Amino acid sequence: MSQDLYRTSLTLLTDLYQITMAYGYWKKGFAEKKAVFHGYFRKSPFKGGFALNAGLAYVIDFLNNFSFADDDIKYLSTITDAEGQPLFEADFLEYLRNLQFDLTIHAIEEGTIIFPNEPFIRVTGSLLQCQLIETALLNIINFQTLIATKAARLRIAAKDDQLLEFGLRRAQGIDGGISATRAAYIGGFNATSNVLAAKLLDIPVKGTHAHSWIMSYDDELQAFKAYADVMPSNCIFLVDTYNTLEGVKNAITVGNSLKEKGYAMNGIRLDSGDLSYLSIEARKLLDDAGFTEASIVASNDLDEYLINSLKIEQNAKINVWGVGTKLVTAYDQPALGGVYKLSAIQDENQKWQYKVKLSEQINKISTPGILQVRRFKNANGKLNADMIFNEEENISNNPILIDPNNGIRSKKIDKSKNYEDLLIPIFENGKLVYNSPSIHSIQLKTIKELSQLDDSIKRFYHPHEYPVGLESTLYNLKMNVIHKLKS
Amino acid sequence: MSQDLYRTSLTLLTDLYQITMAYGYWKKGFAEKKAVFHGYFRKSPFKGGFALNAGLAYVIDFLNNFSFADDDIKYLSTITDAEGQPLFEADFLEYLRNLQFDLTIHAIEEGTIIFPNEPFIRVTGSLLQCQLIETALLNIINFQTLIATKAARLRIAAKDDQLLEFGLRRAQGIDGGISATRAAYIGGFNATSNVLAAKLLDIPVKGTHAHSWIMSYDDELQAFKAYADVMPSNCIFLVDTYNTLEGVKNAITVGNSLKEKGYAMNGIRLDSGDLSYLSIEARKLLDDAGFTEASIVASNDLDEYLINSLKIEQNAKINVWGVGTKLVTAYDQPALGGVYKLSAIQDENQKWQYKVKLSEQINKISTPGILQVRRFKNANGKLNADMIFNEEENISNNPILIDPNNGIRSKKIDKSKNYEDLLIPIFENGKLVYNSPSIHSIQLKTIKELSQLDDSIKRFYHPHEYPVGLESTLYNLKMNVIHKLKS
Repeated sequence: MSQDLYRTSLTLLTDLYQITMAYGYWKKGFAEKKAVFHGYFRKSPFKGGFALNAGLAYVIDFLNNFSFADDDIKYLSTITDAEGQPLFEADFLEYLRNLQFDLTIHAIEEGTIIFPNEPFIRVTGSLLQCQLIETALLNIINFQTLIATKAARLRIAAKDDQLLEFGLRRAQGIDGGISATRAAYIGGFNATSNVLAAKLLDIPVKGTHAHSWIMSYDDELQAFKAYADVMPSNCIFLVDTYNTLEGVKNAITVGNSLKEKGYAMNGIRLDSGDLSYLSIEARKLLDDAGFTEASIVASNDLDEYLINSLKIEQNAKINVWGVGTKLVTAYDQPALGGVYKLSAIQDENQKWQYKVKLSEQINKISTPGILQVRRFKNANGKLNADMIFNEEENISNNPILIDPNNGIRSKKIDKSKNYEDLLIPIFENGKLVYNSPSIHSIQLKTIKELSQLDDSIKRFYHPHEYPVGLESTLYNLKMNVIHKLKS
Repeated sequence: MSQDLYRTSLTLLTDLYQITMAYGYWKKGFAEKKAVFHGYFRKSPFKGGFALNAGLAYVIDFLNNFSFADDDIKYLSTITDAEGQPLFEADFLEYLRNLQFDLTIHAIEEGTIIFPNEPFIRVTGSLLQCQLIETALLNIINFQTLIATKAARLRIAAKDDQLLEFGLRRAQGIDGGISATRAAYIGGFNATSNVLAAKLLDIPVKGTHAHSWIMSYDDELQAFKAYADVMPSNCIFLVDTYNTLEGVKNAITVGNSLKEKGYAMNGIRLDSGDLSYLSIEARKLLDDAGFTEASIVASNDLDEYLINSLKIEQNAKINVWGVGTKLVTAYDQPALGGVYKLSAIQDENQKWQYKVKLSEQINKISTPGILQVRRFKNANGKLNADMIFNEEENISNNPILIDPNNGIRSKKIDKSKNYEDLLIPIFENGKLVYNSPSIHSIQLKTIKELSQLDDSIKRFYHPHEYPVGLESTLYNLKMNVIHKLKS
């Protein structure tokens, strides 16, 4: 089941209402009316100051394979309405069978820092197709961006230490593991324990042994010796099966034999107990025995707060961090609320009609337009401010940015030439025009981007809010559309 | 990428240390030593009193396809140690290539209520194979059991109301969506919006329209009319795009036209705002207009606590609940900490040597033995107590159960004949001997099991702790093994 499941077309990875709406557009003769949708989120995850964009390569793959297979059509023909009649007529299903993906898509590259309200994707083309791809796009990007952001936060906490991803057994399903491994690497992790993800995605893989190795022997020392016999150059001894500091002593005994044979013990791993105390004591034991180069790996419910505390407050002697559950499930906020909203639709004269979704909550009102995100940098390369603007308007050289959720907060940009437009072409009328970088390049981009972000925005508690504003013409357009709808 | 990814063998869906340990066992000549492992969790999720077992059908599928493909072997040959040398020797990789899955597996059926410390799976066979399948087993069962449990809690809160699963766009990856839909249905949901899951798993699918349908028209009334034209027997009108109660009035206008044409409007959907107030007002408007049969569907960050409050404290007039993010990500506890521990291994004379993993925390000490779970029921069919026992021992007719985490808590079972042993044969020496029931039968089993569970155990706040104990001989065995290890 789990395997067959993925040998199918993924085109039906959508909510039924996307297909009923598509049917409605088709029946009413405006399936191919040109529309623009944007994907964005409203709040940075984890009460943080930023997010790290990820998932685009999967979106590209999904769209490259977007086509209704025969058994998709057959299945759709079996869906019935409240009267037990087929929900969709045969001609519509024929239309779907022959549908050629031809949308134009702009997106922000993976490994880019992004902020609330900024479109990370812009989809232009037939209303029907825009709608059909919504759910899969959100599923992929919401999750990978969430985990990449968590990983980037862990990278910030761990500074230059090694970070290993160990989460597969607690991940949310098979792909919850594999996509999380990918996003963790994008966010700055060094390696994973997940062999399948490593194989498929070209990510370094690490692993030594678990408690069961120790338990399969009569005692721990024997177990360490046997392991060192077999893999003398892959020795990180897990020392907490019975008694942690006794375990460290056993590791040292075996480390000495390894040394005699010309090998260096790589280190030890702590997986329970007081990681601060145990790592400090273990470090002393190891140093006293001459193993100053041996690593101390720690795991056990780690997250960015605990790593930060262990390093800064507790002076723990840990230099490799194994992070599992809290990373791959984004434990303290397991979903990113990314949304996808219609912002413009062409009328009979090919003129854009701008659209917003109203709400009592100002931050839930969507922004109309054909949007682009312009990022301004300071002379030192640090991020200064982001401007969301309507590509249909001419933008002043000295634009004014207005907070979309608070019209009295504004910021003036002085004729800056140091800027970049973040949404770049991915598909043009269905044709892929973008080369996805390697996952290693994406990770390098992350590291560079993080270095350009002010520390005040990266901190975990009450981070500074990075300025993101609507260019003033766009702000006015939004207000006009809102007031027109309300009257 | 996301599609190719799943066209591969899933055999490498494991942590690298499982393979390095397998290599160690093989090198040391005891790869085929007979061992027993059990999977179990230590605490019910969501601070609740029970869990609902799910995932077995996926585990069976994974194991039925367990075999190293050529490209798996090729990939493993590229992994290197700290010296840059291949980690695995060629003969071991040949051994893996020729490996035939031949484990014996007992498991608890899907849709069964389970409790902490009870093995939901028992794996017997070669130490090497037991180890290689650990990670995938935990990944699958941890997630599906977590979501099925959440769904069962929502079923308890919603009583006989309809429950719809709407989570795909916020799920943790593609399979995080599909597996969650499956588990939600097992836990008692009526239908899903996820078309692919519905197609693959034979689950009822539902959907009407989103805000974008409304926004693609000049006004809401036009949009409702157009929708009703196209799908007159599938009309649940989403009424909150602009102003909810005005939306209800527009729905009524269109409902009246439908009535004239001989159709019944199915209902309306609320997706924002004060669900209690809006549903009460909407119900009045609908009833006054003669639409007493029209459903009121609500969605927007619902969970079991909110549904409970809306129904019981707020007297909301909602009879269909659409639940997304909070269900499919198990938002308040996004991981079940299921573990998999070695509990016995055969010595040279084929005699079982019992094993435990020690810990400073008593609830983290594993239980030795070849375990079975016996469930005793009362005369009225309600669950009375569960006993974990060692199948190698003869059990008294009047067994005493001892709390594994507190030796002074015990319970005597009086000669009960009303019991069932929950772990049943799934694979015998690699051969599948179990027919997975249909997902509909599993859901029926869930409903029956929930009815047999006392309300005090099902409640959300401080539930009563259901008695699960070690049979006294097993308890003594465990204490003996612990004391022997400590001395």
